Amino acid sequence: MDTAYKFLSHIGSPADLKRLKVDDLHVVCDELRDFIIDALSCNPGHFAASLGVIELTVALHYVFDTPYDRIVWDVGHQAYAHKILTGRRERFDTNRKFRGLKPFPSPDESEYDTFTCGHASNSISVALGMAVAAAMKHEDRQIVAVIGDGAMTGGLAFEGLNNASTIPNNLLIVLNDNNIAIDRTVGGLKEYLIRMNTNAGYNKLRYSLWNFAKTLGVLDEKHKNKILRFNNSLKSMLSNQQNIFEGMNIRYFGPINGHDVNNLVRVLGELKNHKGPKLLHIHTVKGKGYEFAEQAATVWHAPGLFDKDTGERKVCNEEGQSPLYQDVFGKTLLDLARMNDKIIGITPAMATGCSMNILMREMPHRAFDVGIAEGHAVTFSGGLAKEGMLPFCNIYSSFAQRAYDNIIHDIAIARLNVVLCLDRAGLVGEDGPTHHGAFDIASLRCIPNLTISSPYDEHELRNLMYTAQLPDMGPFVIRYPRGRGKLRDWENEYQEVKVGTGRCLKQGTTLAIITLGPIGQTLKEIVDTLPEDEREKVGLYDLRFVKPLDTEMLHGIGKTYKSIMTVEDGVITGGAGSAVLEFMEDNGYKLPVHRFGLPDRFVEHGPVGKLYEVCGLDKASLGAFIKEQFK
Amino acid sequence: MDTAYKFLSHIGSPADLKRLKVDDLHVVCDELRDFIIDALSCNPGHFAASLGVIELTVALHYVFDTPYDRIVWDVGHQAYAHKILTGRRERFDTNRKFRGLKPFPSPDESEYDTFTCGHASNSISVALGMAVAAAMKHEDRQIVAVIGDGAMTGGLAFEGLNNASTIPNNLLIVLNDNNIAIDRTVGGLKEYLIRMNTNAGYNKLRYSLWNFAKTLGVLDEKHKNKILRFNNSLKSMLSNQQNIFEGMNIRYFGPINGHDVNNLVRVLGELKNHKGPKLLHIHTVKGKGYEFAEQAATVWHAPGLFDKDTGERKVCNEEGQSPLYQDVFGKTLLDLARMNDKIIGITPAMATGCSMNILMREMPHRAFDVGIAEGHAVTFSGGLAKEGMLPFCNIYSSFAQRAYDNIIHDIAIARLNVVLCLDRAGLVGEDGPTHHGAFDIASLRCIPNLTISSPYDEHELRNLMYTAQLPDMGPFVIRYPRGRGKLRDWENEYQEVKVGTGRCLKQGTTLAIITLGPIGQTLKEIVDTLPEDEREKVGLYDLRFVKPLDTEMLHGIGKTYKSIMTVEDGVITGGAGSAVLEFMEDNGYKLPVHRFGLPDRFVEHGPVGKLYEVCGLDKASLGAFIKEQFK
Repeated sequence: MDTAYKFLSHIGSPADLKRLKVDDLHVVCDELRDFIIDALSCNPGHFAASLGVIELTVALHYVFDTPYDRIVWDVGHQAYAHKILTGRRERFDTNRKFRGLKPFPSPDESEYDTFTCGHASNSISVALGMAVAAAMKHEDRQIVAVIGDGAMTGGLAFEGLNNASTIPNNLLIVLNDNNIAIDRTVGGLKEYLIRMNTNAGYNKLRYSLWNFAKTLGVLDEKHKNKILRFNNSLKSMLSNQQNIFEGMNIRYFGPINGHDVNNLVRVLGELKNHKGPKLLHIHTVKGKGYEFAEQAATVWHAPGLFDKDTGERKVCNEEGQSPLYQDVFGKTLLDLARMNDKIIGITPAMATGCSMNILMREMPHRAFDVGIAEGHAVTFSGGLAKEGMLPFCNIYSSFAQRAYDNIIHDIAIARLNVVLCLDRAGLVGEDGPTHHGAFDIASLRCIPNLTISSPYDEHELRNLMYTAQLPDMGPFVIRYPRGRGKLRDWENEYQEVKVGTGRCLKQGTTLAIITLGPIGQTLKEIVDTLPEDEREKVGLYDLRFVKPLDTEMLHGIGKTYKSIMTVEDGVITGGAGSAVLEFMEDNGYKLPVHRFGLPDRFVEHGPVGKLYEVCGLDKASLGAFIKEQFK
Repeated sequence: MDTAYKFLSHIGSPADLKRLKVDDLHVVCDELRDFIIDALSCNPGHFAASLGVIELTVALHYVFDTPYDRIVWDVGHQAYAHKILTGRRERFDTNRKFRGLKPFPSPDESEYDTFTCGHASNSISVALGMAVAAAMKHEDRQIVAVIGDGAMTGGLAFEGLNNASTIPNNLLIVLNDNNIAIDRTVGGLKEYLIRMNTNAGYNKLRYSLWNFAKTLGVLDEKHKNKILRFNNSLKSMLSNQQNIFEGMNIRYFGPINGHDVNNLVRVLGELKNHKGPKLLHIHTVKGKGYEFAEQAATVWHAPGLFDKDTGERKVCNEEGQSPLYQDVFGKTLLDLARMNDKIIGITPAMATGCSMNILMREMPHRAFDVGIAEGHAVTFSGGLAKEGMLPFCNIYSSFAQRAYDNIIHDIAIARLNVVLCLDRAGLVGEDGPTHHGAFDIASLRCIPNLTISSPYDEHELRNLMYTAQLPDMGPFVIRYPRGRGKLRDWENEYQEVKVGTGRCLKQGTTLAIITLGPIGQTLKEIVDTLPEDEREKVGLYDLRFVKPLDTEMLHGIGKTYKSIMTVEDGVITGGAGSAVLEFMEDNGYKLPVHRFGLPDRFVEHGPVGKLYEVCGLDKASLGAFIKEQFK
């Protein structure tokens, strides 16, 4: 494959790119596009975003002196062309695979990858820090942050912008405006970006109006700064819109076509020498150059395997398969919303991912996608709950880390009835360390007033959701994993779960295994295959609630068994196992508590099954430990 | 005192206020001002902010139908007039006292207090939630968010604004612009607000320019929306500034004088009937009406006791007193910054509170106040660290909850050299549940790559700060409390602390007491007063590092003693005591571990000493437990 490309096959680093003529760059872009489409058709990954920034990536590496100059990507979905141009073309077939190329840019992998970029909206703050550091070290390097319109809705991006406008710096922010985040960009900023565009009459009017204003004595030529602003005010006036960036003293340029690589090279070259913070607004099309993706960018965000010629996605045959936890959540939410008119769905830009789009489709006025804004999602839920609504706020576990204070301050203190659904809790697989939902149990367990639960299976998820919406349950956390469950017949009759009760799945005599969440099914499978004399000795318990604990069940276990094994799909330090340990200690039970969970390090990327092995949470490792207990 | 006021003495609720004539309201304002100055001179509290919003408060309760209409205060510092007008005048002398009026508005205390408001920037999100709930319940109530210019710099406020512009609502946001947060508002938004003002030529020009634009065919009368924007563009053009609120589809009004109560009543009355989201920008003076405070608003943020006539603050005689931990931090940081030119100070709007102003004064280019933006403070620090700088990022423990994901994603994953100083860790006293630094240990302990420490005393604080800035220490957390230490001779020679080592303060035989932080001094005092035969049996250990643990010391304890008592000034669930417990369990030590710390509920406000009693962390309670061990 590698010799197939006239230019790309010879680009081992940006230095090779720089040797090309500007007029050849569009060919490089075409080749990159072919390469990515080809590679992703047989090795799944984030697709549409990367196709959208090919020209930008080529232009950035052509104009700037990377890695001396720093490009800070915001969310790594889009960085495949960047990887390919920076020495990772030949390993690109290992992308997202276990011990292969990492899913997102990572400084551990390449000096061209300047910062961790899994969670959205951090690039401006990071780049500002880098720009300040460069100034202090008297290094004249350029710092470029590339941020999408979706990521721009995050509060962190605003905090970065606000600060960038006062600290002296030469930061270049490239706003990659493709009018779509993972789902769609939401909020005023979207409206704003849509309307902002150049206007044919602008240049003519600018001159006339300027003179006119001068005759009124409002403006004079001596004040260059003011005139600059005046021009920009005109620009925004003509687009019937204000320029919020200029409002923050950040010089605004654009919008320009993000797929005209020659013009991008020209504009970036000019901006390179422009002092002070500045923002270049480019318009791009997600999925650009691959017709199927252009037409359905959300579907093609991460399409899985596909036939590159026909655009047919090789979706596994879903017939007869048990559903995704996500779909059980989405369908159950709709069902409950029909029964309880207080229920409102809230998602920060993950409507498709968490299947809240099912509710949105059927009852659009009962669900809100608030954009990439996890903190707001929770606090907004707090406001709704204070007035008697019952929000189901769904956030991926690792993104909910962004709402930690909101959960404490805006929900838990006043014990508001908010159901916090933490999707993708536990290991998520190929998205790797930034996306594993590892810390939710350990970090939330210390917050007073919270109920924290995790379902054993799809039926339990439905029962917990049903229970959480009953009157005055207070803040109610339900964590569940990414992916499919095992029940085909998932649509059980709802049953109220008594808060703070676990379930005994099997009585035993010697070893009590206490699990939290669907990982309990793995333990059940292990126990089911034990020889009968051993199996008899093992008790199996589904903890179900980390908070409050089922003290009756735990007292029973403490009195009956000789040792305890706890297993959870979350970090072991301070997790559910520690909750059990604290209970046993506080109540004077002396039996050993062996805790199993994620280790005290950031777990890499790879297939979930492989990662469980790495963490000692696979059947073989857990089974071996259990066998050991009977020696 | 109570009969002294012509009007105020007869206002038991807003209903009484509404019976007054508009022209009498300024007298009510004067009386409120007198009342607050009088009350706070002998019972300390947040002073300047409340004086600044007296007219606004009176006007809001006069115009709106509270509590049916909802006023959502952003940060409760400013809400004293609100409390006094809503039935709490007679109890106002108990403000901030143990079991007295709460420090900030709280729905637990009054139906007029609509939401928890201790942490800045949540009001817009909350109010939006309330507005949506009202619409769903077909209730026509008005929702008003009152937010300061400081709180407006928080990312959460931006997320709220962004969302408010797309969800249909009639929200009124009052931007209380006093050009100062606790320290000073920082960032582009400040510049923006300063420049935005009305212009004499505006109305004249508006008409001429409009006609002019029409002749160019750019605008026409049919598009009312566009014309509205056009007018606002003009307005911002004339002020040489853009209007970011209008940019987000939020109708902007103002700025107006926030101390003209009659005009406020008029404007608020008009806005009440205005559909759609809108923002009223008012200018106020922090400390308004009390000359001393107007001149030094930061000092008078929370001045303590003072003589109301002379403005003399009754500062305790500091001579001979040991210094505040804050000052030890501030002076040591300056000292270290002189020795290590990589050190940079970062604070999110707490420069005075944490004494980073000492560094700022001496080396202004080496310290950054980034505004109320905790997430950005940490991520910005990450960018600096990635480029070789060594940021000391100081955040109050409870506010650092807002940077939880930033600590994980932007610092810990890449193991960047950022020193995270968590000021006001543990119980803070009168500021109450929103401000206690209770959760840092439990929530941070599960994050890989972090070093987490807490100093026993001022010398240790300096040693830990010194150690943290040595080469390549990775992310290094130092938590320490609010208030004074006990050492007068605090300025020791720096000594490197070996990471992950505790200290044995006293050997023993039976009971090992393991403490974290300055609360260890309390335990030492208790142990020192034990009868000799008991004292001999007690070992005393300063854990110093929650992560990594001093495994050698803990093995020694596990092997030697019969039981362990752990004491920390943080939440007991999953805290440092649990770390010790996990260690003992994992290493097969069977001695009991009695954990002492903050309970699993939100601790109320009051003097720290009193709160320790409530939590069983006072000398008497802890001493009684120790005595019990020898029975």
